Amino acid sequence: MDPRVLAVLGRGVVPLDLPLLRADDLGVSRGDGVFETMHVREGSAWLLGEHLSRMASSSARLDLALPDHTALADLVAAALQAWPSDREGTVKLVCTRGPEGEGPPTVYALVTPIALASLTQRRAGITVVTAPLGFTADARASAPWLLGGVKSLSYGVNMAALRWAAGQGCDDALFVSSDGEILEGPTSSVVWLDGETLCTVSLDTGILPGLTAAYLLDHAAEAGLTGEYRRGTVDDLLDSSGAWLCSSGRGIARITELDGKPLAPAPLTDTLREILGFAL
Amino acid sequence: MDPRVLAVLGRGVVPLDLPLLRADDLGVSRGDGVFETMHVREGSAWLLGEHLSRMASSSARLDLALPDHTALADLVAAALQAWPSDREGTVKLVCTRGPEGEGPPTVYALVTPIALASLTQRRAGITVVTAPLGFTADARASAPWLLGGVKSLSYGVNMAALRWAAGQGCDDALFVSSDGEILEGPTSSVVWLDGETLCTVSLDTGILPGLTAAYLLDHAAEAGLTGEYRRGTVDDLLDSSGAWLCSSGRGIARITELDGKPLAPAPLTDTLREILGFAL
Repeated sequence: MDPRVLAVLGRGVVPLDLPLLRADDLGVSRGDGVFETMHVREGSAWLLGEHLSRMASSSARLDLALPDHTALADLVAAALQAWPSDREGTVKLVCTRGPEGEGPPTVYALVTPIALASLTQRRAGITVVTAPLGFTADARASAPWLLGGVKSLSYGVNMAALRWAAGQGCDDALFVSSDGEILEGPTSSVVWLDGETLCTVSLDTGILPGLTAAYLLDHAAEAGLTGEYRRGTVDDLLDSSGAWLCSSGRGIARITELDGKPLAPAPLTDTLREILGFAL
Repeated sequence: MDPRVLAVLGRGVVPLDLPLLRADDLGVSRGDGVFETMHVREGSAWLLGEHLSRMASSSARLDLALPDHTALADLVAAALQAWPSDREGTVKLVCTRGPEGEGPPTVYALVTPIALASLTQRRAGITVVTAPLGFTADARASAPWLLGGVKSLSYGVNMAALRWAAGQGCDDALFVSSDGEILEGPTSSVVWLDGETLCTVSLDTGILPGLTAAYLLDHAAEAGLTGEYRRGTVDDLLDSSGAWLCSSGRGIARITELDGKPLAPAPLTDTLREILGFAL
């Protein structure tokens, strides 16, 4: 039996195998919409407020009419009421622009178990290959149509990068700029340890503001560290005392190899995962 | 009454207002799929074979299982059988990767009248603003994950560029590279006249191979011209004897202004439109 749970705005929980979107929904015909994926723990969506804030920012950038915070939080709660509270998962909240010329937005929440591959990678770490995005780290700041920092449904390039990485025998990809700066993974943020400083990439590079990474930096003191947003390079990761990709479902996964070169063993991995509240 | 017609692979014509796609269809959750838009004239899809070939190329680049040529052609024909043969329109053929982990692809054809704005622009021309894509004209050639030349459903950036252009008071946008080359419009190809040569942008820049533009160049002799793929700059357009954006629905629209600067009046516009078989 499919364990996933689907709840639709205004309708509550409905069967996932029934069609939901019209053929002319701009979410499918144009990849035009926004989404958030949250970790589900103890029956709740972790960092719900932060995710809804980021979704509102993404929507504003797309001139998309997002339902209000309360309606979205209620929708997530409705989906999670039908989900076993002792089961780890993710809840993906989607808002498309809706049918062409008509609206209203199509809004739903889908709860899914954590993929087995993600649990394995959380435990064993990941091999990563860099994928140049073609532009400089500053390009997106002055070109709002490039949607830097927007979590839109147009993830074709992100998915292609993951397929390309798999084709290279790697578990994940890391986008880099044409001027050699590290940016983000297709579905994750990069975090690295430089001495006693836990770093993630500055948001002025147009990356998505990673919420798992932000939580980790905010709580770095619990590991005896300080957190810092800064710009970095592949060499910074190779020279670090540990580097990780952080995301809502997989949590934190240590980068064991980057472009075929081994990274430091990162004994802090367990501590950081515990700070984030992810089980092994 | 909604004049649009929807046909679904394996089902034939179905009502458009009924939901078609599941919530977990990767076409919506990841913008993961391909599409083609064809001009409908005299009850047929113009350049059907060329569009199906391009769709097959796009699908191959995405490792997507596209139904065979005959099945897709039959689907388009089924949709057009329910469309008045004397009415101009477009037919959009969509193939998503289908529901997550399960497939099969979701495949449908949607016939739509030409938008009034498109007909006006075909007649009166368009004002255009350049939108830098951030990367060099060569960046996509060595980075297959950037999906240069792939007509994917992830059109979020394209739509954002059109909204941004409208916000600048312009009708359309023209993507340019960071090294100053003209590339393509968000939903069109650029064509310009240099003396007796009708030019469009070289495909090694990673643009989508425009089929309306290709047809025009192939038939340039009918206007006493030769056709040529070449690289160009904004100045080439400003210095040209005419420049146009070409696409399946709008056909050919003369660029009257680019970044606020007037372009040549382009007396050849009517001839080129007639070669393409678009009515005024």
